[in-house]
Amino acid sequence: MVRSRTPTGFMMPEPSFRRVFGQVDLRRLESDPAVDLLADSPLDPRSGADRRLLGRLELLITGWGTPRIDARTLELLPNLRAIAHSAGTVRPVVDPIVYDRGIAVSSAASANAVPVAEFTLALITLAAKRAFWAADRVRDGAVDADLETAWPAVGIRGRTVGIVGASTIGRLVIDRLRGLDLDVLLHDPTVRPAEAAELGAQLLDLPELVARSEILSLHAPSLPSTRGMIDRTLIGSLRPGATLINTARGDLLDQEALVERLERGDLVALLDVASEEPLPRDSRLRGAPNTFLTPHIAGSIGTELGRLSAHAVDEAIAFAASGAFRCAIDQTTFALRA
Amino acid sequence: MVRSRTPTGFMMPEPSFRRVFGQVDLRRLESDPAVDLLADSPLDPRSGADRRLLGRLELLITGWGTPRIDARTLELLPNLRAIAHSAGTVRPVVDPIVYDRGIAVSSAASANAVPVAEFTLALITLAAKRAFWAADRVRDGAVDADLETAWPAVGIRGRTVGIVGASTIGRLVIDRLRGLDLDVLLHDPTVRPAEAAELGAQLLDLPELVARSEILSLHAPSLPSTRGMIDRTLIGSLRPGATLINTARGDLLDQEALVERLERGDLVALLDVASEEPLPRDSRLRGAPNTFLTPHIAGSIGTELGRLSAHAVDEAIAFAASGAFRCAIDQTTFALRA
Repeated sequence: MVRSRTPTGFMMPEPSFRRVFGQVDLRRLESDPAVDLLADSPLDPRSGADRRLLGRLELLITGWGTPRIDARTLELLPNLRAIAHSAGTVRPVVDPIVYDRGIAVSSAASANAVPVAEFTLALITLAAKRAFWAADRVRDGAVDADLETAWPAVGIRGRTVGIVGASTIGRLVIDRLRGLDLDVLLHDPTVRPAEAAELGAQLLDLPELVARSEILSLHAPSLPSTRGMIDRTLIGSLRPGATLINTARGDLLDQEALVERLERGDLVALLDVASEEPLPRDSRLRGAPNTFLTPHIAGSIGTELGRLSAHAVDEAIAFAASGAFRCAIDQTTFALRA
Repeated sequence: MVRSRTPTGFMMPEPSFRRVFGQVDLRRLESDPAVDLLADSPLDPRSGADRRLLGRLELLITGWGTPRIDARTLELLPNLRAIAHSAGTVRPVVDPIVYDRGIAVSSAASANAVPVAEFTLALITLAAKRAFWAADRVRDGAVDADLETAWPAVGIRGRTVGIVGASTIGRLVIDRLRGLDLDVLLHDPTVRPAEAAELGAQLLDLPELVARSEILSLHAPSLPSTRGMIDRTLIGSLRPGATLINTARGDLLDQEALVERLERGDLVALLDVASEEPLPRDSRLRGAPNTFLTPHIAGSIGTELGRLSAHAVDEAIAFAASGAFRCAIDQTTFALRA
């Protein structure tokens, strides 16, 4: 029996493609017996020749900047059976209509989760030792920094870390925290206490979690139901000396309330994301004390991008060979994830 | 058979004692059937009453600031059989004469190594992502920071990390790096290639290690043979864009040569230690670019001190019960360790 090869192609901006996809993965795709790669660079819907190829595509690899796959885009893709997304969040690319058409969706969220979890663990570790504060004191010319008298709690061991969201990233962070001899609290409305206990965390409702955490790290998806979930009241209930870490999405918290609390001087915020990115030049966050602000770098950058490339190509090959993704995002999951 | 209980006591400055030893550990020591705790606070050689108790001591618990146990101090301790040190480095406290007298020595190096390794791993993770540089750009008002064009290498995955010294700390760092999908190089003249391979690291001589490392982390002891080991030539051979991490001792490197290299702008230094501590107000290090300077906080602080207390008490109880420490530092080890 001669099996037909699955017509496959990319659709995303050229720079995004060049940044993520490496030669090794492209050769794997080209040489795979189940894959018929129609072009080794992204197809452009504005080009007539590319539109003809898009019309034949059954398997589409998407990425950062891919135009939204909605009813209009799907007119160009009448044979589409599957989308292998090469980044973490499928939401900007996948319109719910994709599911109505029975098209399979896969994301590279598990691959993208790795550097975010590693970055978050590093922030938790340094925050627990008040390293950012101490480095600021040295920078300001101090010859000594008596951390143990300046802060109500110092040190990694035995500290209470609250995780909001048992997402792929949240679970990886909890997993890594297990080695650190500290107490992990978890809030996630979709998780039951027994499952939390298995993860090594104590399940709490959000107000109690926020009030008890010495270090609070956000790993919830950005959904209509989670936007602003860390509101002014919760920000007010953070313990004096607490650290808030956000490597997820800026819209999860009330940034104005956070800035006001930071200006009181008894809170630390380590933020890789903000409500507006890049951070506006006149953002009050820039002037707030006890902050360590990074420009959305926790996710895959540089060498880490190779994991996204490898993951999307693995998924494309799996679909072409078996008709199913290994990391499929079904319609139910789609509704709960960022 | 009635076994005699081992006369045991503390000798260290009162603040150092109060900072490290917790009530739980003191109660454990007091109630142990093999231990006769002569006093639940440090004995002071200047007090006549305390001198009489010191004269009876067989087991001494020392710590930060304990006067050096040399020939003169030993005159006060004619019955001493064992020293359980509650900090990492026994060298400031234990004079070699202690070994000539057949006194057993234990250190809490393994307990103190834990936070140093955790801190170092966090620095390596953030350095690999250029997070300190990116945070500095945000701090300076930048609205964007294009890491991938600003630096020759960005990202954790696949990076080359060189470890100098397979000390207790160095081994813990290598162990933790194994989870990070990167290449680990090791220099340690006391380690053989097969042992390095078992650790998951490639053994190299120092010049090759320094020249190949994208991130170089020092974990060698401070000994006459290691002082200045990272000399001007080696500092000059560090790759452009490399990161040097020192959580060990400031005297391992030529700090003046390091400052000069940093001022060229193509090196990053994350330093928890310096050749003089606290760092003098006019140190040129303070003005050097691409530095993250912390005031010797990688080792046990705050909650982490409880590990030292627990370790020293465990060791004291083990010696009292069995006549031997579990973490003894013998004369050979003493010569190789900080």
